[in-house]
Amino acid sequence: MISKSRIRLIRSLEQKKHRREEGLFVAEGHKTVEELLPVFDCTFLAAGTEWLSAHEAYAEAMKRKGTEIEEVSAEELKRISLLKTPQDMLALFRQPESRTVPEEVPGGQLCLGLDGVQDPGNMGTIVRIADWFGIRHIFCSPDTADIYNPKTVQATMGALARVEVHYLALPALLEKVAGRVPVYGTFLDGKDIYTQPLSENGLIMMGNEGNGVSREVAEKIDQRLYVPSYPAGSPTSESLNVAVATAVVCAEFRRRLG
Amino acid sequence: MISKSRIRLIRSLEQKKHRREEGLFVAEGHKTVEELLPVFDCTFLAAGTEWLSAHEAYAEAMKRKGTEIEEVSAEELKRISLLKTPQDMLALFRQPESRTVPEEVPGGQLCLGLDGVQDPGNMGTIVRIADWFGIRHIFCSPDTADIYNPKTVQATMGALARVEVHYLALPALLEKVAGRVPVYGTFLDGKDIYTQPLSENGLIMMGNEGNGVSREVAEKIDQRLYVPSYPAGSPTSESLNVAVATAVVCAEFRRRLG
Repeated sequence: MISKSRIRLIRSLEQKKHRREEGLFVAEGHKTVEELLPVFDCTFLAAGTEWLSAHEAYAEAMKRKGTEIEEVSAEELKRISLLKTPQDMLALFRQPESRTVPEEVPGGQLCLGLDGVQDPGNMGTIVRIADWFGIRHIFCSPDTADIYNPKTVQATMGALARVEVHYLALPALLEKVAGRVPVYGTFLDGKDIYTQPLSENGLIMMGNEGNGVSREVAEKIDQRLYVPSYPAGSPTSESLNVAVATAVVCAEFRRRLG
Repeated sequence: MISKSRIRLIRSLEQKKHRREEGLFVAEGHKTVEELLPVFDCTFLAAGTEWLSAHEAYAEAMKRKGTEIEEVSAEELKRISLLKTPQDMLALFRQPESRTVPEEVPGGQLCLGLDGVQDPGNMGTIVRIADWFGIRHIFCSPDTADIYNPKTVQATMGALARVEVHYLALPALLEKVAGRVPVYGTFLDGKDIYTQPLSENGLIMMGNEGNGVSREVAEKIDQRLYVPSYPAGSPTSESLNVAVATAVVCAEFRRRLG
């Protein structure tokens, strides 16, 4: 039986404020949890009999490293889950200390920047996309969705283990890299991405779901790109979803290197 | 004041069974609703004073065509909304009769097929992607998420007005078009899409979030494609989200025509 105080703790971690105070975050489902276990410090794991007996030695090693493990029923997992669709496992992980980003990162590789992406699902999907396309660093404005939101963690499907997400003032970052690092962004009045030169490295800025990137960030973008709709000029949706646009843009950067 | 029976009706439309019985669906937010108004038959519209006074003539014309219109407060909209984030408008639309798909459609243009896509958000996002890339018909297995789910309608952002979604047995469809229409699908063991010949028309099959396309459908796929991760062979996520993969694949089909 999971204690009442633990349930209270888990519930509290739905809120960013409490996540920050406790320095913890929740991950659910064995797929996601198993990807995070080697990378993040796990303080608590609730799993079913089946998983525990299939991973006995692993669980023992976790206990030695200080993870509290509890065997729970599907019923109990359902009760503690923070997701709409409860998973077969729930774990608490320690948020790592925010790491200093090495100076050369934004120039030496392809990175993403997110300026005010709001939806936790979009945020997680973008981390999964970054992982797929070999992007290791994402720079986010402070008002971008929290990477440790349970829904975001869920949408990353474990990609969080391979992608570092940094929160910082984007205009200052862009100022610092100006002239050294090509900065890209997508705009409805941008140029057809398929006709534009793209570099191997650089920073791709994606904006808020409704409003795109902020004015301050837009001013510092070197190349304004556009994913063309088809056929050109025919009536269509106003825009693509931000995660979808991120994927198409990243795919095109990587295709050029193929 | 919206009547109690109307509120009950709206609430009931959260469930597919009731949507089918009533032949209605719910759309929320002026962006989505305004896109659907010219295309679907609107039986009821709840909007705020601001919208109604800005669209007086339009609202009058709607009333003449049989739409009941009610002026509501933000408070009331919040109470009747089926979404997590209540919008500034809610409308009930009649589901159109399912239309017969002209024989030549799957061969004459690029179409999508969805085999068991489960998540309503993914479903709606895919409709928005189809719209962007000029795909007018989506063929779905009967177990694919319902296009009239309120969350799906929301995620289409109005693209539903320009894309027709058909539910039918996919194996039978694929049998009918075999040899005439190129059928594509994405598979983790497929061939790098960027190295494969792609036609202007044909059917692109996308599968369930967890399991991909069913065996029956997989057998009838002519060309197995794969969106390469980067760098090739490095550890990464197991797959891309289905909507994201759809977007990258559709973008590549359309890029070839550019």
